[in-house]
Order: sequence, then structure tokens, then C-alpha cells
Amino acid sequence: MNRTLTEVPRRLLLGSGPSIVPDRVLEALASPTIGHMDPAFAAIMSETIDLLREAFQTENLATLPISGTGSAGMEALVANFVDPGDRVVCGVHGLFGERMADELARAGADVVRVEAEWGRAIDTERLLAAARDGLDAMVVVHAETSTGVAQPLDGLADACREQDALLLIDCVTSLGGHPLRIDDWGVDAAFSGTQKCLNCPPGLAPFTAGDRALAKLDRREKPGRSWYFDLSLVLGYWSPKQAGGTARAYHHTAPINLIYALREALRIVVEDEPLEAAWERHRVAHHALRDALGVLGCTRLAPDGEQLHPLLGVTPPDGIDEAKVRTALLLEHDIEISGGLGPLTGKLWRVGVMGASARPEPQERLVGALCELLGATPDEPLAALAEGWRA
Amino acid sequence: MNRTLTEVPRRLLLGSGPSIVPDRVLEALASPTIGHMDPAFAAIMSETIDLLREAFQTENLATLPISGTGSAGMEALVANFVDPGDRVVCGVHGLFGERMADELARAGADVVRVEAEWGRAIDTERLLAAARDGLDAMVVVHAETSTGVAQPLDGLADACREQDALLLIDCVTSLGGHPLRIDDWGVDAAFSGTQKCLNCPPGLAPFTAGDRALAKLDRREKPGRSWYFDLSLVLGYWSPKQAGGTARAYHHTAPINLIYALREALRIVVEDEPLEAAWERHRVAHHALRDALGVLGCTRLAPDGEQLHPLLGVTPPDGIDEAKVRTALLLEHDIEISGGLGPLTGKLWRVGVMGASARPEPQERLVGALCELLGATPDEPLAALAEGWRA
Repeated sequence: MNRTLTEVPRRLLLGSGPSIVPDRVLEALASPTIGHMDPAFAAIMSETIDLLREAFQTENLATLPISGTGSAGMEALVANFVDPGDRVVCGVHGLFGERMADELARAGADVVRVEAEWGRAIDTERLLAAARDGLDAMVVVHAETSTGVAQPLDGLADACREQDALLLIDCVTSLGGHPLRIDDWGVDAAFSGTQKCLNCPPGLAPFTAGDRALAKLDRREKPGRSWYFDLSLVLGYWSPKQAGGTARAYHHTAPINLIYALREALRIVVEDEPLEAAWERHRVAHHALRDALGVLGCTRLAPDGEQLHPLLGVTPPDGIDEAKVRTALLLEHDIEISGGLGPLTGKLWRVGVMGASARPEPQERLVGALCELLGATPDEPLAALAEGWRA
Repeated sequence: MNRTLTEVPRRLLLGSGPSIVPDRVLEALASPTIGHMDPAFAAIMSETIDLLREAFQTENLATLPISGTGSAGMEALVANFVDPGDRVVCGVHGLFGERMADELARAGADVVRVEAEWGRAIDTERLLAAARDGLDAMVVVHAETSTGVAQPLDGLADACREQDALLLIDCVTSLGGHPLRIDDWGVDAAFSGTQKCLNCPPGLAPFTAGDRALAKLDRREKPGRSWYFDLSLVLGYWSPKQAGGTARAYHHTAPINLIYALREALRIVVEDEPLEAAWERHRVAHHALRDALGVLGCTRLAPDGEQLHPLLGVTPPDGIDEAKVRTALLLEHDIEISGGLGPLTGKLWRVGVMGASARPEPQERLVGALCELLGATPDEPLAALAEGWRA
């Protein structure tokens, strides 16, 4: 007897991710599966790495997609670059900082938390002060997806270098949509996700590591706790040159079709417009939408100068049932936005401004639908949106 | 400047996996991406779990796809059910047993290796003897993909229960293609892969855990080393009832599109023919192909009674350059088969008999192409193949 299964609806994804996946990326995803040791796949891997290096703005040979979702990238970062007993300064100003602190504690690190209120960036002076007492690594969330805050990294790389420590970052929601320069900024290793500004389905964690980070890996006296994320093995497959070999050595079966999709998604990010132009488009899109939602009574959580362009976190209008409006938006208008997490549950809307959604059309659709649900006339907010895009 | 990228070729995948992915599974994969907290996705998850339970032959509520490839399933198994200092009896009779022993050692287990020659099953009496000295867990590779050997599990569950230990298995290449009954056999937890007999792209690790395994997790006094694979968190999303909650709680963003593909692939496995009939088809296909390749001078590595139906490991014909033939098969005929690993490098061909490839047509294509490359007439091997299918 054949089951009746749920059909996949078509939604406009304007939440915290996954984001809108363009048809050409879905088509690439559905290309025929081939073997992970096929020479054609080896070529596809190399092309993907090259594109990923450009998106990360890095020359690192050790740049690759980890075979798991964004959080797998976090686990790979810690499994490879944090040893038990390491003193690690960890910035915590949202859910993903909390998660990182949890991961570090599980890894046996001595975690020094430097906190800020959810919705604010951490004063870099406080991170630098914590570093002065000595450290093996500093981890900061560059793009805090739970609040929509971009964390400045000024001075952090120098402070880490002075003490032979590593600067490690979570850039899940900044890669491709918010200024990010791995090499220029002296970031030693970073991870991201595919389902944010890259507009690719979730399932891979773009990852990059520089020589200082890899040197720490080389100094390790016994294998790390994770076999799956062990970069010394993973690089033998993804980057044999970096691993000191010549041919790709089998480690685990790569998620073939997701790599096809990532290659196509990166191609859009890197080829369709200069990366700096894409960053600027995200900035304009962010502010245009903020202005439009402002007319409806929404206030951005992040203060000026601390906002993360790809994720607009706003307080919902006063006096409404925010969850009810979000549900109606999803089920009646097929538009997804996200609610708040942790202490911000019920107090925040998180709207994605990520790649394909950093455009006027999807924003107009969102504003129109919200006006309908809130019983507001759309003229003024749409005018504010248009004005924002003209600016 | 737009790059010219490598086109994805169309191959007939008859290696050790990934296996042939049917068009309907690729189409499902390319369904529109939706959010991981969308109620429609919640329904799709439930349907996927139900189908997966049937494939595993288990009532376990804690049945789900881990967000990573097959080896991520191994890591999840060990991260959740093996504590540092545990005495773990580990069967090692091929690459995947070696890998498991490596993983266990990294987890801080006291690993008791019970070995057999690559290409042979392990005498269960020897596993039972090792268990008599006390153990916390026993891990065996049910389907050794590196050699094509199926490991009997007779008596192992009872021996584990007597000592309050867990029986954990790797069934990457048996799920869906070789007899496997998680509940009847008393297996406490198991992991598999999607890219073998399920004919789904790689990227997920089907996983199941029973009450005895979960009770061990509950007894844990501090969080395990892995945040990403921590079942107590993962189940809050996949199986809230099992985790004691009511609504799905966000853990990490699931690989949405891969779940669509898995659901469709499982539907084929569970609905198109009774599971027992599929197992029987794999048995017939295995022997038909063995007979056909036997005519060409190939001998199966596994002795009678120890063979794994979905993976036929044979010695290549005497006096040929096996790697050269495999490469020509791939590049001139678009057919992938796999070579040997570790000590069997250059000494083994591994041919997948997995789901859609456990059929006469792809086998005929392989035999025909091999005959051409080996300068043999195809009549006799094709007759042997046909005879095998009639039997």
C-alpha cells in the first residue's frame, strides 16, 4: 500500500535561513550523482574550493566545505584548533556565542566568557583585556544570527598573534553578504553555512584555515577526539597539496550533490557582481527594509553601527501576537520570517536579507503581506522601501 | 569573467557507493527548499522516520537521519554510547572495522580488538569469548564494505545483555539490501548510509537507538564531547516524544533537501516490493553477477556463507592491470566499479549490487563492457548472468 506523503510547499524564505534557493542551484543539486573518487568530481571539488576562497577573501589552501550543516563547521573548528586545557576567550552576545561556549566546554577548554547583552556587539576593548591575561585562542561570532549583530574584529588578530594564540570566527551569516576578509583581518580559521547568503540548501559548512592554525594541528601529539572532522585526514581528500600528498585520498564519501549546488551557488556570489558590490547591495537592502518595517512600528534591535546587514532583527509592532502573525504569514502568504530565540522569544522578528532576498521584489512581497495581516495600508511602508533602494 | 566549469558526467554507478540514484529521487532532492521549523517540514520528517523504522525493522522512536555522511553516523554512535574508559570489544575484519577501532580509541575507550583476515567474517565464538572478560559495549561491522563480507551477529545481543553492555553495529551497506532486523536481533544502536542500498545521494546517516542505549545516555553525568551529534539535543528536534518534549526544538538546521531525497528513496525501498523480496533480489543479483564474473576469471573474496550480497568483492582476472581496466571502464564506458583498499589495493574489485543495481540490465552493461576491455567474448558470461537470474 502506497502512502500519501506531504507535498513540499513553495515558500518565500525570508527568515534566518535557509534562504531563497535559486532554480539554477536546485538544478545543479539534481545533477546525476557520481563517485567521490571520480576524476570529474575531483575537478568539481577544485573549482568549488577556488570559488570558496574568493568568497572568503583568502589564499588559504585549506578551504573546503565540511560535510555537515553550519554547526558541524563549529564542531570542526573546535575539534581541530582547541585542545583540552586551552584557555579560550569566547565572545558571547547571542545564541551562537552560547553554543560556542558550550562546545568549547565540552572540548575541555578553560572558557573565558566575554559577554554583551543580546542585541549588542561586544566592546573589543573587553575582548583585548581578557586576552592580556594569556590565551590559546579567541573565538568570536562575527555574525550573530540570533540578534542581527555584526561583531567588529578590530585589533583581535594582533592581540592573538602577540600571544601565539589563534583567532577563530563563526561567519555563518556574514559570508557573501557582509564585509568579511579572512586574510586581511588575520583570521586563523573560520566556518560558515551554505543556507544563508550563499542561497544554497543547508548541509555543508564552508571552512577555511590558515597556516598558523594548521601548525597547531601538526603539533598535536595524539589524534583529536573526532575522526569525522579531523582536518589532517579531511585535507588528504580535499587539499592533498596542503596535506603534503599528491593524489586525493579517500576519507569519507563527500555529499556529492550538495557540492554541485554549492559550486553553482558560489558562482552566483562570485561572478554575478563584484563581492564588494554584493556587500553594498546587502547594506542598502537592509536599510530599505528597516525603514519600511519602521513605518509599521518595528524597531531594529541592533543600534546603528552594530547591525548585521544579512539579518534584520526588529521588535514586532506593539500589541500584536507576533507568533500568530508569523504563522499567518507562513500559512496564508507562504512567506517565512523567524522569531526570536532564548531571551528574545516572542520579542523579535528576524528577517533574512541574504543574497537573493536582498532585492526589492521579495521585500515588497513581505511588506505587502505584513500590511494585510496588520490591517495597515501599504503605501507608506512601500514608499519607504522604494526610497531606501533609491538612496 | 565567467569560468568554464566541469560538466557533471552521467555514470553507471556500480562501485562501493554512491550507487545509482533514480530520477525520482533526484527530482525529490530538487524540491523547493523550505524552513527547518516549517510545519510542512515537520510532517516530512515524521514520514521519513516512519519509513526509516520500517527499513531498519525497528520500533525505536529514536530513529532518524544524522546530518552527515555514513561516517558521521559512526561518530554519532561512539559519541553517544561509548564513554571514556569503557571496555569495548570491537570486531576488525576490514577498513571499516579499523576505522571504528580508531574512532573508539579517540573516544578514550579501552578497545579490545577481535580480528579476522580481511575478506573473512569473524568467528562469533571469538567475540563471545572476548565479551566474557567483561565489556561495556561491543561494536561490529555488519556489512564490511571494504571486502564484501557480512558478519553474523548470532548470540552477540544475549552476551551483551548479560553484562549490561550495548551491541552497536555499522550497517552502512546492509540496510535495504541484506537481511537486517534491528529489533529481532537485539541491536541497541546502529548507523547506516544513504548512498548504498537506499540509492540516495550521500550526506545523511540513517541512525537508530533503542531504550537500553538511550538509558546509558540518560545516565551520563556531564555532556558528551560532541555538541553536533549529541542525541539528547538532536532528538529534541527529530523525536520530541522520545526526548520527553512535545514540540520540535531547534538544534541545528537539517539538510532539508537531502531529507526530501531520503524520504523518496525509502519509499521505493519500503513500498515497491516487500523488504524480504528486496533482500532476496539482492541475493539473486549477487550470485548471478558472481557467476558471470567467474567466467571472466574473477573469484569472490568472501567464502560461501560469509558474502555480503550488496557488495561483491572479487579478485580481478590474472595478469591484467586492474587499475587500468577500472579507469577505462569509467572513462570509456562511464561505468564505475571500485578497487581494493588497504592491504587489498590492486587485488580486489568491489562491485555494488545495491538497490537499483541489483537488476539484470546494469549488470549486463557491466559484463559487456568488461568483456570488451578484457578482449573476451561476452556470450558465456552473459549466459551465466541470465542463468543466475533464472535460478
